[in-house]
Amino acid sequence: MEHMQIGFVGLGNMGTAMAGRLVAAGHDLTVWNRTRERAQALPGVSVADSPAAAAANTDVVITMLADDAAVGAVMFGPHGLLDALPRDAIHACMGTISAQFSERLAAVHRQREQRYVAAPVFGRPEAAAQGKLWVIAAGDPTARRTCRPIFEQFAQEVIDAGDDAAHASVLKIAGNFVLLAMVEALAESYALVKAHGIDVQLFHDFIAARLFSSPRYEAYGARIVHEDYEPAGFALAHGLKDTRYALRAADAVSFPAPLVSLLRDRLLTALNRGWGESDVAALGRLSAADAAR
Amino acid sequence: MEHMQIGFVGLGNMGTAMAGRLVAAGHDLTVWNRTRERAQALPGVSVADSPAAAAANTDVVITMLADDAAVGAVMFGPHGLLDALPRDAIHACMGTISAQFSERLAAVHRQREQRYVAAPVFGRPEAAAQGKLWVIAAGDPTARRTCRPIFEQFAQEVIDAGDDAAHASVLKIAGNFVLLAMVEALAESYALVKAHGIDVQLFHDFIAARLFSSPRYEAYGARIVHEDYEPAGFALAHGLKDTRYALRAADAVSFPAPLVSLLRDRLLTALNRGWGESDVAALGRLSAADAAR
Amino acid sequence: MEHMQIGFVGLGNMGTAMAGRLVAAGHDLTVWNRTRERAQALPGVSVADSPAAAAANTDVVITMLADDAAVGAVMFGPHGLLDALPRDAIHACMGTISAQFSERLAAVHRQREQRYVAAPVFGRPEAAAQGKLWVIAAGDPTARRTCRPIFEQFAQEVIDAGDDAAHASVLKIAGNFVLLAMVEALAESYALVKAHGIDVQLFHDFIAARLFSSPRYEAYGARIVHEDYEPAGFALAHGLKDTRYALRAADAVSFPAPLVSLLRDRLLTALNRGWGESDVAALGRLSAADAAR
Amino acid sequence: MEHMQIGFVGLGNMGTAMAGRLVAAGHDLTVWNRTRERAQALPGVSVADSPAAAAANTDVVITMLADDAAVGAVMFGPHGLLDALPRDAIHACMGTISAQFSERLAAVHRQREQRYVAAPVFGRPEAAAQGKLWVIAAGDPTARRTCRPIFEQFAQEVIDAGDDAAHASVLKIAGNFVLLAMVEALAESYALVKAHGIDVQLFHDFIAARLFSSPRYEAYGARIVHEDYEPAGFALAHGLKDTRYALRAADAVSFPAPLVSLLRDRLLTALNRGWGESDVAALGRLSAADAAR
Repeated sequence: MEHMQIGFVGLGNMGTAMAGRLVAAGHDLTVWNRTRERAQALPGVSVADSPAAAAANTDVVITMLADDAAVGAVMFGPHGLLDALPRDAIHACMGTISAQFSERLAAVHRQREQRYVAAPVFGRPEAAAQGKLWVIAAGDPTARRTCRPIFEQFAQEVIDAGDDAAHASVLKIAGNFVLLAMVEALAESYALVKAHGIDVQLFHDFIAARLFSSPRYEAYGARIVHEDYEPAGFALAHGLKDTRYALRAADAVSFPAPLVSLLRDRLLTALNRGWGESDVAALGRLSAADAAR
Repeated sequence: MEHMQIGFVGLGNMGTAMAGRLVAAGHDLTVWNRTRERAQALPGVSVADSPAAAAANTDVVITMLADDAAVGAVMFGPHGLLDALPRDAIHACMGTISAQFSERLAAVHRQREQRYVAAPVFGRPEAAAQGKLWVIAAGDPTARRTCRPIFEQFAQEVIDAGDDAAHASVLKIAGNFVLLAMVEALAESYALVKAHGIDVQLFHDFIAARLFSSPRYEAYGARIVHEDYEPAGFALAHGLKDTRYALRAADAVSFPAPLVSLLRDRLLTALNRGWGESDVAALGRLSAADAAR
Repeated sequence: MEHMQIGFVGLGNMGTAMAGRLVAAGHDLTVWNRTRERAQALPGVSVADSPAAAAANTDVVITMLADDAAVGAVMFGPHGLLDALPRDAIHACMGTISAQFSERLAAVHRQREQRYVAAPVFGRPEAAAQGKLWVIAAGDPTARRTCRPIFEQFAQEVIDAGDDAAHASVLKIAGNFVLLAMVEALAESYALVKAHGIDVQLFHDFIAARLFSSPRYEAYGARIVHEDYEPAGFALAHGLKDTRYALRAADAVSFPAPLVSLLRDRLLTALNRGWGESDVAALGRLSAADAAR
Repeated sequence: MEHMQIGFVGLGNMGTAMAGRLVAAGHDLTVWNRTRERAQALPGVSVADSPAAAAANTDVVITMLADDAAVGAVMFGPHGLLDALPRDAIHACMGTISAQFSERLAAVHRQREQRYVAAPVFGRPEAAAQGKLWVIAAGDPTARRTCRPIFEQFAQEVIDAGDDAAHASVLKIAGNFVLLAMVEALAESYALVKAHGIDVQLFHDFIAARLFSSPRYEAYGARIVHEDYEPAGFALAHGLKDTRYALRAADAVSFPAPLVSLLRDRLLTALNRGWGESDVAALGRLSAADAAR
């Protein structure tokens, strides 16, 4: 794989881990982050003064940002990415954004003869650092081919989801919904078991290692058992945002989705208790509080 | 392990598989079933004329029945088990009953100086036939020791849940709740993905084999993808019954449990559509119907 | 109307107001209450030592008790009403009990050739004192005829609901459900309006006096506006009990009723916050808490 | 009151009734409607070729349109209202739009030194024809004063909701939410009562005329009793739209509002059954279907 000129926008924990892998693989990175210090702390990269500067003269610009608003600011704001990205260059949007916004990005890039790939990831920053993420990529076919070896720097697998960029967003949002539903089920069941005076660890061991035999149940269930909600792996405020996107994705196809509605209500209630920065597992704290008299 | 005199009441698919394992291990079984034909079809057993006849002169009587009402009929009905069971003999109740009813059974057996073990199972009849069930056993300590080698004939593991028989019921009910929550999450997410024109198989492969890496997601997700709802592995009417028991268990400790409530509403809606005999995966059919216009 | 021998069991605020009207109308009352002092404080009545003593030698015994358990204790407990009530005498059960329990009472009275009327009331103790309750009466036809003039002492209207006693209970439970749904709607809408910085009084005036033009919206809305939750008119713990009976009534006919489920979850959450003795309007406090960050 | 030059955009049933009252009061109306025929059928008005033509040379332009999208098209589309409205002239937006969109309209009008009033109405077209609507008006203070006598042509009362136009939208949306919650409560309770074999008319008479004593319960309850769902007074598709706006209004202030979520799910389910053009009372049909086996 030849070395490429890559712009990288958004150096949260995940972005930092991904960018680090790309540098290590020998790519030339120009990075931009809202707080410049995080960009300067990354060895072996050029630091850009604006999203535009990160996008100019690149083959691919990757954005790893939290939500529609953050991507919108970087795309359409002053010194934005959109006007600076060269014709035929690629924008790979890897944060979790709504399907509707993904569609809009696809349209504006198409208008300017730029290429757009929606490529959200599953996994935690530590997985990125070990090349163990999953990437779900959809959008421009040529761009997907170009991006695959880049994504493989931090992903154990790149799942191809076709030409419609919005599909990658729907898949990511739907996946997170299934995950959050698991968390709520664990939260309620562990609270129920505990309220009956039963050892929760016993239940957790059975559920996680036997009934489901799943690392996801293992990890989230253990957090609830140990009331280990900070620091967050998957922040509750992000889980709420994703659930709102799921509700919009459902609304767009006129699908009721009662469990999505319920999760929105639970996550919002938890957020209002001040747990937005806690892990989504803090739904366990909410159920525990509901069970207490 | 010495051979024992075992009474066995309830020869549904699960009961039949379990009883078969016990006969194969050399135990003397006296079996009773509401439809006598199923008892007569089982080789190597004595067929009893009543629950009382199955319980008399045994060390242990196992009941494998669908719900509180079925166990109640066998216990307290004419020629019932309760009056016939010898003093110090054991009743191992292995169907899924409510925590409240389990408590009541414990009390009435204690009054008569009989021993009671609640020992619900996780797994399918095929797993029973291969000795691969999980048994969660709680209740009289001596009885639990006596029963363990019996349970191990059809279980890969016997999980000890202490002296309070109701605890085994709560654990079973809570486990089924987590399972049903997964099914509803799969049902809604698969319907959502499909409504967006995305290949559901792609999503299923990711969810089951990658994100959760769980045989449970594999099995139930596959049923939804292939709309393979009959014959049932876990019948929807039973899932509804278990959810009602979960609601009662939650109510008993004054715990709201909104997801339990939601599952009750969904399962009841599905039941009213005539899908009670279908697999619980038929929640997928309900979401698909909700998404259709 | 001739004067009758009436037994009266249960002197809460409502029972006291009702009994007072009957005494004023010239009836001979023998009353029993768990706390004897409340019976002794009522002028012009004989105080009984047990439910049995209140029921013996009467034409009609009225029970005005909180729930199934309270009625069960008085009926079936030591010195209970059931064994003492003369043949052909009437038990008018006026508290809000479940349809299932009402059916059971009808059956046990029938067995003893006693008559049973379920006659729950709508209204507050003050309305009883002014003869302004509504009574919904169902059950034995002769008994309904006999009881009507008695009920009219404290009711503005006696609504006849036929021969099936359980029907009166269902109607009462369903009516309370509609009332509680209104309270939750007011709770959420007032919290929403307030969170947007709008004068809630303005909204309340419109909703209560204009859009619905209903004294019920007037009264409950005003409580929420003024956060006036104590003392209770309709205690939250009773509202929860009624909602549980509604859920059972729905379950009995295999009806999902999602709004009943939601109300149960909300009321239980409020109860666990310690607001069981507050008015059901304290659902407004719960929504306000949910809206606060 | 002096006669004014009024533009009028949107001649649905409600708009037609309102415009008719204005003409009768002697105002000069220039009207535009997407289907020109409805405009031409209205006696005594000038028919405009575009929203712009309806807005030019007027003191006030009233829009009576279904939702954000319809208002957006008329405002910002080709030959749109926004560019044509004279400086200092007033846009009175009387359809039910979202609070967010109302805020945006306020901003764009302010930029052009035009005046904006959000003035949604409660009531049916027949009420408009009789001058019996309620109007909730918020926004530019001078414009509110100017518009009051106009609104009073079709309103029994104009409720002043202050300077923030979005507040009128929130109040309207919140009011409709309370109304829809009532409909769902009636739908579920009537289905429950009926499923128990009780005469629903009896329950309706009690609920509407006695317990709530409200014309709203009277009207919607009667529709459910008689399964009289077409033609719609308040179309289910509009009820769903309003509920979505309520969910957005709740989301904007981080308020969970579980009953709003539930109503969205129910209305969407009903819509998918093909009942979007039916009255919102058709939630009664949904509960009846849920209760049927």
